[in-house]
Amino acid sequence: MINRQWRLAARPNGELSKAHFQWVEEPVAELQPGQIRVRNQLLSLDPTNRLWVNEQDSYLPAVPLGEVMRGVAIGVVEESRCEGVKEGERVTGLLGWQDYAVLPGELATVVPDIPGIPLEAHHALLGATGMTAYFGLLDIGQPQPDETLVVSGAAGAVGSLVCQMGKIHNLRVVGIAGGADKCAYLKDELGCDAVVDYKAGDVDGALRAACPVGIDIYFDNVGGEILDAVLGQIKDFARIIECGLISQYNTGDDAPGPRNYKNILIRRAKVQGFIVMDYLHRAEEAMADIGSWFMEGKLRYRADVREGLEHAPEVLNELFRGANNGKLMLKIQD
Amino acid sequence: MINRQWRLAARPNGELSKAHFQWVEEPVAELQPGQIRVRNQLLSLDPTNRLWVNEQDSYLPAVPLGEVMRGVAIGVVEESRCEGVKEGERVTGLLGWQDYAVLPGELATVVPDIPGIPLEAHHALLGATGMTAYFGLLDIGQPQPDETLVVSGAAGAVGSLVCQMGKIHNLRVVGIAGGADKCAYLKDELGCDAVVDYKAGDVDGALRAACPVGIDIYFDNVGGEILDAVLGQIKDFARIIECGLISQYNTGDDAPGPRNYKNILIRRAKVQGFIVMDYLHRAEEAMADIGSWFMEGKLRYRADVREGLEHAPEVLNELFRGANNGKLMLKIQD
Repeated sequence: MINRQWRLAARPNGELSKAHFQWVEEPVAELQPGQIRVRNQLLSLDPTNRLWVNEQDSYLPAVPLGEVMRGVAIGVVEESRCEGVKEGERVTGLLGWQDYAVLPGELATVVPDIPGIPLEAHHALLGATGMTAYFGLLDIGQPQPDETLVVSGAAGAVGSLVCQMGKIHNLRVVGIAGGADKCAYLKDELGCDAVVDYKAGDVDGALRAACPVGIDIYFDNVGGEILDAVLGQIKDFARIIECGLISQYNTGDDAPGPRNYKNILIRRAKVQGFIVMDYLHRAEEAMADIGSWFMEGKLRYRADVREGLEHAPEVLNELFRGANNGKLMLKIQD
Repeated sequence: MINRQWRLAARPNGELSKAHFQWVEEPVAELQPGQIRVRNQLLSLDPTNRLWVNEQDSYLPAVPLGEVMRGVAIGVVEESRCEGVKEGERVTGLLGWQDYAVLPGELATVVPDIPGIPLEAHHALLGATGMTAYFGLLDIGQPQPDETLVVSGAAGAVGSLVCQMGKIHNLRVVGIAGGADKCAYLKDELGCDAVVDYKAGDVDGALRAACPVGIDIYFDNVGGEILDAVLGQIKDFARIIECGLISQYNTGDDAPGPRNYKNILIRRAKVQGFIVMDYLHRAEEAMADIGSWFMEGKLRYRADVREGLEHAPEVLNELFRGANNGKLMLKIQD
């Protein structure tokens, strides 16, 4: 049984490309006691993947050169030498950019089969994406009714859920996205009260028009100039949920910091960094609410599913150009 | 009765000087019902004063051109047309850079006469300085025993109290200050476990040597390059108490933001801005602890008292050159 893999071959300095990976085809490893073999079906591609290939460790150790590229995927257990995991079960975990993952059974999480929930929803709505939106907005943001919430990357996987959860919590929601299509989606489909198209220029002015009384909560997925514009318009005791800095992931250490940082002091704001894995022990709490909201029609998602493991590097890059429409995934095999 | 005053005459772009103020001598205003007249004795000079003269409002409205410069002072009530305030009482409040303040009685706070507590202590240990150290470190910093606390501006009024409160709470305390004398004071007098002399160069390396396992809590009084060095060395779930950005108060909007901002995300840190006036309702809590620690000899302060209202602008500037030794004050009259 041949296992096709993308292994990390070089550290990128800027944008990732195929040149930073090596395509390897080799026999699947035999199982050791306690291990399982998973047939990978659906790979999640996320901005944070870019952090993992830097030389410097991030919140996870850097992927070592020569190793299979790290990635969250869903698949089916084909063989199990682990007592708690049954063959035929569907699982998720850091299964990697490959056809088959061989890993200790305790590192895989069972994905429940829920009627009416397609496979993509486990990446796009449940799992890490939904939990990131949920705990970031509610736990760190501490929203109060009628507050103004600004979301960047608002048409993206996490952002689009944050916008809707903001409406569920009776906030005034302002979404920032690039291009007229995405902005129309935010207003017409997700119920945003106002939108800012950052590609149309004058983000500062557009944001001021969209938030006439200032900003209480900012869910940041992008960093950079948009973060700076927001910091310039925060109200006293604002909360900034630092969830992502996608505008800076390809710029190395040369990206300037936010000039309006001093407003954190003057406005007595709280900026809190946030990685969803710190909330895994509270997953049930999020899943109960997210599941209910989805069933009630209050929460929707868009899945952007591409085909073919061999395209993983280029497909990942689309996130940094905003070329995806909703949660980006790659179908590896059935 | 002549009232000598410093009135704001121009907005500084960079360092303050006498040229930005006008020296006025005019008769003291007559009291309206509800007002009191205070003979100002001891003026507190604080880095935050610099923020108040910018054109842009900060956490307080900008001091209007032509108005008496805002400042916290202690004085004696000479005349009262306010029922709750007695003549002869000592009070504090925003009494301004002048010999006599005429203001509504309810804007003044009585300063209790405590045996063994000299007048300077009300600025240097009690009042805003002590409360800033206390609530910043304890309420925002949430220290746990054996954590590493780094304090910038550590030999300053607030910083020196933070260092000592850190030791009282069993933290490993690392003080950052400019020059060998201040660093010796931090180690020998205040009990810091390690010190970093930022004027000796290589702050990053010195900080790494002083904090071999990383930084849990940073009490920031300065911003700028020192903040950046700290952000580069924070541990997971670090807390940054954003109390002051003295390195940036004279630079206008041209100061760059912290390049290591992205570590807030990666390390899931919390940065929280903090202005002591938001804690005035909890003053008693702080005063009880601070008073006890002082009486037990666990907390000491240095008072740097200058003479002469006419020197107020130059004396304030000394804060930005680090030329003061401890809490900077100006004696106006007996």
